[in-house]
Amino acid sequence: MPGEVNRDPVCLFCRIVDGEIPSITVHEDDSTLAFMDISPATDGHLLVIPKKHAKDLGEIGADDLAAVTSVAQKLARVQLDKLGATGVNLINNWGESAWQSVFHFHLHVIPRYADDPAKDSLKLPWNPTPGDQDRIAAAAAALTD
Amino acid sequence: MPGEVNRDPVCLFCRIVDGEIPSITVHEDDSTLAFMDISPATDGHLLVIPKKHAKDLGEIGADDLAAVTSVAQKLARVQLDKLGATGVNLINNWGESAWQSVFHFHLHVIPRYADDPAKDSLKLPWNPTPGDQDRIAAAAAALTD
Ligand SMILES: [Zn+2]
Ligand SMILES: [Zn+2]
Repeated sequence: MPGEVNRDPVCLFCRIVDGEIPSITVHEDDSTLAFMDISPATDGHLLVIPKKHAKDLGEIGADDLAAVTSVAQKLARVQLDKLGATGVNLINNWGESAWQSVFHFHLHVIPRYADDPAKDSLKLPWNPTPGDQDRIAAAAAALTD
Repeated sequence: MPGEVNRDPVCLFCRIVDGEIPSITVHEDDSTLAFMDISPATDGHLLVIPKKHAKDLGEIGADDLAAVTSVAQKLARVQLDKLGATGVNLINNWGESAWQSVFHFHLHVIPRYADDPAKDSLKLPWNPTPGDQDRIAAAAAALTD
């Protein structure tokens, strides 16, 4: 199968790339995919990943890292424009000691809201809990509008 | 003065780039500078910045963003190799709502230590407090060894 060497069959995010596991996609290009975090720290929290499997910051190639970061920058701007966010945090966790839980490189793009502290539950280490699917979908819709 | 358009005379980090304010530098190239955070969240916490002034993630150019991220990746590896870190967090804060406090783009590179929770004070929002200068210098020395 073309590209097989680039995927890990038991990797959750590789399976999302392949469409085996559904996700709410907000951006896709040749080398990257961005989709909503299902356990968002705040409304609009999304992840950007390389399509090619790399387990972490130590393993991701230079081109993929630059591509992922560039997409994150663009989507952060969209979070400000479309979601009413007033700030954004980019976070990458390398290793369990840094709270990495899925071992396919991902960059968190987390909008922040000055006007509504109750929406803003991000404290690190954060304990991911399943989010409200409607709120997640609504944020995704706003981002791709 | 050459490059004057690229600097902000009242910007703390532009003044560090120019050497007007001292810093403990751990990496320098044509477009980036990396130096120790003086209020480290953990031992070895450093910042990577573009030399050209850009106030935040919204303003930094694509080339500088890629360069800063690449340097952060390299230094994260060095934190694992030289400091005994077992993980690393990369964090960028865009805007006051996301705890940005110095308005010259910077990427935090924060080593994590599985074996010593007491060394690991990072919780977000973290309240920067001045670090122990000897520990900062020792980490910088290990990183540049
Ligand atoms: Zn994968
Ligand atoms: Zn500056």
